[in-house]
Amino acid sequence: MSTVTKTQNPEADPRVKAVFDDIRATRKSDFINNMWLYLAFDPDLLEKTWAEVKAVMATPSALDPLVKEMLYIAVSVTNGCSYCAHSHTAAAKAKGMTNEQHADLMRVIALAAKTNQLAVALQVPVDTAFDADRQA
Amino acid sequence: MSTVTKTQNPEADPRVKAVFDDIRATRKSDFINNMWLYLAFDPDLLEKTWAEVKAVMATPSALDPLVKEMLYIAVSVTNGCSYCAHSHTAAAKAKGMTNEQHADLMRVIALAAKTNQLAVALQVPVDTAFDADRQA
Amino acid sequence: MSTVTKTQNPEADPRVKAVFDDIRATRKSDFINNMWLYLAFDPDLLEKTWAEVKAVMATPSALDPLVKEMLYIAVSVTNGCSYCAHSHTAAAKAKGMTNEQHADLMRVIALAAKTNQLAVALQVPVDTAFDADRQA
Amino acid sequence: MSTVTKTQNPEADPRVKAVFDDIRATRKSDFINNMWLYLAFDPDLLEKTWAEVKAVMATPSALDPLVKEMLYIAVSVTNGCSYCAHSHTAAAKAKGMTNEQHADLMRVIALAAKTNQLAVALQVPVDTAFDADRQA
Amino acid sequence: MSTVTKTQNPEADPRVKAVFDDIRATRKSDFINNMWLYLAFDPDLLEKTWAEVKAVMATPSALDPLVKEMLYIAVSVTNGCSYCAHSHTAAAKAKGMTNEQHADLMRVIALAAKTNQLAVALQVPVDTAFDADRQA
Amino acid sequence: MSTVTKTQNPEADPRVKAVFDDIRATRKSDFINNMWLYLAFDPDLLEKTWAEVKAVMATPSALDPLVKEMLYIAVSVTNGCSYCAHSHTAAAKAKGMTNEQHADLMRVIALAAKTNQLAVALQVPVDTAFDADRQA
Repeated sequence: MSTVTKTQNPEADPRVKAVFDDIRATRKSDFINNMWLYLAFDPDLLEKTWAEVKAVMATPSALDPLVKEMLYIAVSVTNGCSYCAHSHTAAAKAKGMTNEQHADLMRVIALAAKTNQLAVALQVPVDTAFDADRQA
Repeated sequence: MSTVTKTQNPEADPRVKAVFDDIRATRKSDFINNMWLYLAFDPDLLEKTWAEVKAVMATPSALDPLVKEMLYIAVSVTNGCSYCAHSHTAAAKAKGMTNEQHADLMRVIALAAKTNQLAVALQVPVDTAFDADRQA
Repeated sequence: MSTVTKTQNPEADPRVKAVFDDIRATRKSDFINNMWLYLAFDPDLLEKTWAEVKAVMATPSALDPLVKEMLYIAVSVTNGCSYCAHSHTAAAKAKGMTNEQHADLMRVIALAAKTNQLAVALQVPVDTAFDADRQA
Repeated sequence: MSTVTKTQNPEADPRVKAVFDDIRATRKSDFINNMWLYLAFDPDLLEKTWAEVKAVMATPSALDPLVKEMLYIAVSVTNGCSYCAHSHTAAAKAKGMTNEQHADLMRVIALAAKTNQLAVALQVPVDTAFDADRQA
Repeated sequence: MSTVTKTQNPEADPRVKAVFDDIRATRKSDFINNMWLYLAFDPDLLEKTWAEVKAVMATPSALDPLVKEMLYIAVSVTNGCSYCAHSHTAAAKAKGMTNEQHADLMRVIALAAKTNQLAVALQVPVDTAFDADRQA
Repeated sequence: MSTVTKTQNPEADPRVKAVFDDIRATRKSDFINNMWLYLAFDPDLLEKTWAEVKAVMATPSALDPLVKEMLYIAVSVTNGCSYCAHSHTAAAKAKGMTNEQHADLMRVIALAAKTNQLAVALQVPVDTAFDADRQA
């Protein structure tokens, strides 16, 4: 069940086909996952979302591709996004995340959620030492 | 303003002093940030929280220390914890996070929040290809 | 699966029947969706929840009924409520939301989630120009 | 206090100046709010964020500009973003939001948060009638 | 700073005065906290919000008043609401919450946030044994 | 579907077996729920998570066991954790939560979510009277 209807034969639309072709070429795989199939209900939204995902996640940058997948997992889990937890954990494994790294990722994001809760509950005042302008 | 009173002379309590001594030794710094000063209202909570933070964040593991700080930032920002965003960004910088890495971290966590929202809004069904048991 | 048992023959309770009758009359439809069927485990909770939903969502007010449904979707998606994303997207479509408006709604709530993340990550100080008392 | 240092004389960088010039032209105002001043720590992030905000929020589309601001407020409040609640409430007022509309917005987003909580707590199963493919 | 202007002399409006009088009578105190002073920008919103708070929090029910305050804190902290964390912690202390109970509350809500994160990250399937209909 | 593979014959690992034995002994039941079966992918994570759950939830402390379960529900629901809402509601019922208490819990956590939203939307300034140092 979803909130938009899944387009039948989405690649009949040339804008959708162009995005799907680029996804396949970028990932060197024929698999198009549901996120893109459902976003195809609006070709403009599909194009812009893929363009940003490609630019941030599939383009070399200051952070390692696996690190970026783990950061994506951290945000997705904290937001409670089931689809995203699944898709980005699969992506992280495809990029070489080991069981030990996966378990360590769990430890860090679980601990962060815990101490976030404590800091908010106690309303701990921010130390002036943490001000970026002071550190500069 | 906080929801617990800041203990006057917290190190008069030997359990608090032992934790603070360990924080100083672990970090090689005299600075005790507010999180620990306020947690001192309950020495048991202080001890256990520090023990876990030390085990996860200040002990060599499968993930790089800077990566762990960035994951901590990702969770803290998604949870909207102002104190934690400040303290862990300062920690990441102290561990060598460059401006380019910081900006890249921003790109990833902002994009993740955006696509989380889309996946939830469309209620995209999870692809069976993402099932860990299938991948095994 | 749910956390409360679904009442068998809920309209045997006259308070439940009165609420269900009002739901049917207000919506001009015989369909009672699961939210109300499960809330029937406590007639008082059912009555008060429906009364508020009716007063806010099914009574003419300063905002257009479709706008109110879209706002409901925005909050529900941000909270990750699967049931609510489904029920209010269906309601918005029933009130005339077009595909173009749906896609635009996606753009706005996805962008908002993204810039929320940036503002929190950078801990941007609130401009004094935004103070309501200054604007008055 | 923020987590990045505020750039001194940011418009010395021609990419930053071009963005700020476009913000001033688009809004017909000399005021540059802190969000953009702090994003200037990374000109690429500044450029891409402004381009998306301009495309979604300052370009005619299927939804009314004031409705888009209210949707932005709904997401920002649900995410607990203080900066965003302030900046988009000010923007909505500048676009003509009346006190009555503001109060109505409060009623809808507060009720949505409340019923989101009930639906999640009861784990209400999604009605098959809400499936978009059924409705098509 | 707030997003609505604080009404000057709010009790000049008889509906506001009636609510404030009832708050003072219910709490046996002259203190009106900011939540109510700011909600006074819309007397209807003020009346309905107070009526619900009074019915749920200040009326004997199946749960102890202090337990209800602690539940309120748990939700408010998880939502990152600074105002609410402050006001309900103060209320819980006024109703007799001891330091030991406060620390225990911290332990439970911090642990819950941590295991929530693990359950979502692992996408643990719900055991059929937890189905309310099976337990009935 | 989950993001880690469910270990076949997990008790072949003596560390896992020791934890499962302790769970069975503590709960006086042979049932091991999925949370622990999936956490078994990393015995260290399993051990530490169970140790903390046992210490906080299954050890007499300043708060009543049923109150602790209800607090756990409050956090889990606010975080949108489906697994946790199910498991802790079942646990609360096993510890004697009545239908009346369950409905009252719903009222409090739904109202808290609603007023959290209002306080954040209005950006209500924290009253200085709520400062813990002033109350001390």
